[in-house]
Amino acid sequence: MTDRPKTPLLDRVRLPSDLKDLSDRQLRQLADELRAETIAAVSVTGGHLGAGLGVVELTVAIHAVFDTPRDRLIWDVGHQCYPHKILTGRRDRIRTLRQKDGLSGFTKRSESPFDPFGAAHSSTSISAALGFAMARELGATDVGDAIAVIGDGSMSAGMAYEAMNNAGHLGKRLIVILNDNEMSIAPPVGAMSAYLSRLYAGAPFQDLKAAAKGAVSLLPTPLQEGARRAKEMIKHLAVGGTLFEELGFSYVGPIDGHDLDQLLPVLWTVKSRAEGPILIHAITRKGKGYAPAEAAADRGHATNQFNVLTGEQKKAPSNAPSYTKVFATSLIQEAERDDRIVAVTAAMPDGTGLNLFAERFPRRCFDVGIAEQHGVTFCAGLAAGGMRPFCAMYSTFLQRGYDQVVHDVAIQRLPVRFAIDRAGLVGADGATHAGSFDVAYLSNLPGFVVMAASDEAELVHMVATAAAIDDRPSAFRFPRGEGVGVEMPERGTPLEIGRGRIVREGGRVAILSLGTRLSEVLKAAENLAQRGLAPTVADARFAKPLDRDLILRLAREHEVLITVEEGAIGGFGSHVAQLLAEAGMFDRGLCYRSMVLPDIFIDQASPADMYAVAGMNAPQIEAKVLEVLGVTLAGERRA
Amino acid sequence: MTDRPKTPLLDRVRLPSDLKDLSDRQLRQLADELRAETIAAVSVTGGHLGAGLGVVELTVAIHAVFDTPRDRLIWDVGHQCYPHKILTGRRDRIRTLRQKDGLSGFTKRSESPFDPFGAAHSSTSISAALGFAMARELGATDVGDAIAVIGDGSMSAGMAYEAMNNAGHLGKRLIVILNDNEMSIAPPVGAMSAYLSRLYAGAPFQDLKAAAKGAVSLLPTPLQEGARRAKEMIKHLAVGGTLFEELGFSYVGPIDGHDLDQLLPVLWTVKSRAEGPILIHAITRKGKGYAPAEAAADRGHATNQFNVLTGEQKKAPSNAPSYTKVFATSLIQEAERDDRIVAVTAAMPDGTGLNLFAERFPRRCFDVGIAEQHGVTFCAGLAAGGMRPFCAMYSTFLQRGYDQVVHDVAIQRLPVRFAIDRAGLVGADGATHAGSFDVAYLSNLPGFVVMAASDEAELVHMVATAAAIDDRPSAFRFPRGEGVGVEMPERGTPLEIGRGRIVREGGRVAILSLGTRLSEVLKAAENLAQRGLAPTVADARFAKPLDRDLILRLAREHEVLITVEEGAIGGFGSHVAQLLAEAGMFDRGLCYRSMVLPDIFIDQASPADMYAVAGMNAPQIEAKVLEVLGVTLAGERRA
Repeated sequence: MTDRPKTPLLDRVRLPSDLKDLSDRQLRQLADELRAETIAAVSVTGGHLGAGLGVVELTVAIHAVFDTPRDRLIWDVGHQCYPHKILTGRRDRIRTLRQKDGLSGFTKRSESPFDPFGAAHSSTSISAALGFAMARELGATDVGDAIAVIGDGSMSAGMAYEAMNNAGHLGKRLIVILNDNEMSIAPPVGAMSAYLSRLYAGAPFQDLKAAAKGAVSLLPTPLQEGARRAKEMIKHLAVGGTLFEELGFSYVGPIDGHDLDQLLPVLWTVKSRAEGPILIHAITRKGKGYAPAEAAADRGHATNQFNVLTGEQKKAPSNAPSYTKVFATSLIQEAERDDRIVAVTAAMPDGTGLNLFAERFPRRCFDVGIAEQHGVTFCAGLAAGGMRPFCAMYSTFLQRGYDQVVHDVAIQRLPVRFAIDRAGLVGADGATHAGSFDVAYLSNLPGFVVMAASDEAELVHMVATAAAIDDRPSAFRFPRGEGVGVEMPERGTPLEIGRGRIVREGGRVAILSLGTRLSEVLKAAENLAQRGLAPTVADARFAKPLDRDLILRLAREHEVLITVEEGAIGGFGSHVAQLLAEAGMFDRGLCYRSMVLPDIFIDQASPADMYAVAGMNAPQIEAKVLEVLGVTLAGERRA
Repeated sequence: MTDRPKTPLLDRVRLPSDLKDLSDRQLRQLADELRAETIAAVSVTGGHLGAGLGVVELTVAIHAVFDTPRDRLIWDVGHQCYPHKILTGRRDRIRTLRQKDGLSGFTKRSESPFDPFGAAHSSTSISAALGFAMARELGATDVGDAIAVIGDGSMSAGMAYEAMNNAGHLGKRLIVILNDNEMSIAPPVGAMSAYLSRLYAGAPFQDLKAAAKGAVSLLPTPLQEGARRAKEMIKHLAVGGTLFEELGFSYVGPIDGHDLDQLLPVLWTVKSRAEGPILIHAITRKGKGYAPAEAAADRGHATNQFNVLTGEQKKAPSNAPSYTKVFATSLIQEAERDDRIVAVTAAMPDGTGLNLFAERFPRRCFDVGIAEQHGVTFCAGLAAGGMRPFCAMYSTFLQRGYDQVVHDVAIQRLPVRFAIDRAGLVGADGATHAGSFDVAYLSNLPGFVVMAASDEAELVHMVATAAAIDDRPSAFRFPRGEGVGVEMPERGTPLEIGRGRIVREGGRVAILSLGTRLSEVLKAAENLAQRGLAPTVADARFAKPLDRDLILRLAREHEVLITVEEGAIGGFGSHVAQLLAEAGMFDRGLCYRSMVLPDIFIDQASPADMYAVAGMNAPQIEAKVLEVLGVTLAGERRA
């Protein structure tokens, strides 16, 4: 499984400049070796396999033709960047991908000058590339070409359209390579996807009558391999009247993104001749060249460690159902009793568990594409039309729809239910995917109900609670990964809005937890009890509205009150502090502390390791209590 | 000026159902009367005139043909909804538009059943309409047709594209009317705008060869006026191959949006025949039918009260330059010394003052269209390319780019400077335009510098400060309206990062202000001084990083510490509370309070009246101090 493939040519490549001396034949061999090395590396680390395999030839061709890092190459999302990392001086660390202290699973500016712009969320690449292009136009002499490589799925996001609309208007040289594999994480949806399919459906376009206009004018004399290859290539090009041309781009394509005999001359010609913005439409296959990936439903999108020969993946032992699955099955339960319940995902049916909902209720489940802005307001419209929409998004992606949450949902007080997955720190995907801010950015919106599940049974009840809240917006958050193994209720029961619960009674110290840190808090409490310092532990359940009675009682009956939450400052703890201040609880002294995520972006590691960096695991909670009690004792001594 | 126009036919219309009995000739007369009444009303109230005048005939036609409110009519943005309000039972209050306790300047669900979905921010209408349409498809029996009316400027937003992509995919009946006046607030920019112009450039399309396909199949037998009119109309229709059709819409148009002889049969035919999503492309003229508006550069986009006969607008007496203008001139000053400074606006060149910057530096100013997501990441790309971008957006619109601020700017620590206009409560535009959340949603992002100007001179220095910050992102916020009339520095001087300033020294109470509430705080302080309770007043300048020394000194040296900010909870006060808690300042007692915007959305009124509702004017600040001191005294008495 850990056997290294034989890669004699790749072994001689330290940087992309080493590709300049290779013949086209050698580049083809290099691509084969690069594919083998990518498979071997991911078999050890796990990670995103299919996307990288789909762009092996594209990666080789771009680095062979363009002059990175002076030419700025921007991979959209970044799942496909592993071969790029291998070619750009990071091969020696490629088997640390997505590990603690290892290479990021995405492009990252701090990691390499060959990553001029980091990624992870979709559809940012054209905007960023246009920024580089305009910097160059304004005199940034160290910036050459700007090249965005973007998948067809990412094209469903409005941001990509906004960028193309602006780039077409500005009219400056900019290279966009559409990596069209008909597959993002799930098969892409939407009219654009259907349109792209039509562009290369059936026989390849062969009409050269329009040769005088548009992109074909870029392609008369390839520099490298002479007229023979150029003619061959042009036979496979279609030109004219595409949607991209209406937006001001020259369009070249479709071309076979696995055929260096097409890629190289097209890129050479574009490099030497392009003037305005140009879109190169390359057809690729996700998982290309690795049979187990090509055969998989998700084309090897994300994989655990696996056996290279068989493709068999290591399975982590499973103790409890994942929060995602608990959410999905609970929602199905609710939907069976209430046919107004509908569900919306933004291109993450599997990640959110809504694939299960869609199987059961195909007409009531909507995948809107990578389109969080639209997704949120679509839910608002559904709610205004009398339905009971659940908008299922990852915390970090809901940021894309924040204005719509404020403007279309909160201000109108429409009962959209936000099911926020991947709350808190998420592990291997790192800082870009952390769900750090949702409690803060939702809890200050008037009218919202904001909940966080402390375990998977609580999640079941919160789904029921959200379903029942029909006069205002609500949200409930839950983390990535497995539950803690508590006994599961047969069905959810709506919680009383704004009521927390005491989990254990104690003495001088109260710890008020929101979310799944509760298990760490309880561990800390157990240790403190053994020191004779058993704290009261409460599960807030609601960040909004706060359980005023509970919080004031905890404050009055304890010397120390500590809040704990898996989120940044500005959220639950800040609301508790405001309540305590207004109630005058600080006036005559209260040892109040709020444990929140620290003011840093935390790199990838296991969630537990990330929470250790954040200072929010049981030992650190225990230490915090002791530290505060120490301060109090010292204060008493002074008094 | 306040003379009411003669409107005999309009006087008989109480609700849209009254239009059903009118002949087409009468509808034309009604449109004329509706236009006169709209002009008369806005002459009294001020407000958005041009947009409404551009859709008078469209408003009449839609209400004549469709059955509102059962058919759900959604006006994008809503600036154009005044004629709609007049026709839908709100004529008696139309002269209260945008006033305290009056009609909203936008559509608003709580105001009328004829406003099924509120608006104010752009490009939400197709998403919302699709929500209604799918609710209908799923059995919501009270929902008829869903009709979105969206301007060409709004089409530059990615959200509109996301919605069309989804609607085209779903394929259900949905009516989108593109109100194309080549004019949003400023002339729209971008490749889409150029494309729309091409669609009706030169001679009207007359090609009926494609009559068999697409939208023309919808138009064989108009219901109302017979074949004569239909033939006339069809001569002006173009069909086939448009970008909208590529996205799955039938396309009808372009038609003359001021000609009821075209509008009525098209709408009747669409109503009786449309099956999937359909886009009707209507060409209109902003300000139509009122010469002063038609002649104005902004086509009467927004106006003060005016004289109907002359068009002359009332001018408010001006005491000090507006913050917007101070920002723009300061930025020009900085840009004259640093050619890396560039500026980006999202379709608001006038509103942000960047029109002045663009006059001076046309190549260094970018209007990206209504495209905040792209605008933010474009700035990140410019910064990564070595430029020094200022991203000038209103606080409320920056919400549209929040994920990009987090993901592309903050995580990469790129020095994008956010110039945040319209911070705090904004007056006549009401709750949808309030800049309430930016301090909260930016200050919890690691690495950010967040400033708020307390007066226009401070703003000058903050522009210089942001220009000088080149190793991390920064933001500075300032309100709508005029400065307070302080002496202006000749040029800006960078402030020391994270340092506030004492404005006046006092005794038991310290008030720590962020932003332009400072003038109210100083008024309160003066009154308190006259009671012998002169407080210390400090201007924090920075919400992040906090001036730790200053804050702890204020806490140590005063019994009472009150923060004041023009923002929601989770921002400055929450960060101060966290600092005080961690420093143990609450442990032995500190009367701490944080004055933030209350947990309600505040309806339109003057900013001063809105701040009165918020409880944040001088008398209320004074009362807060007295209340807290009262608590303290009571506590002391008890002790």
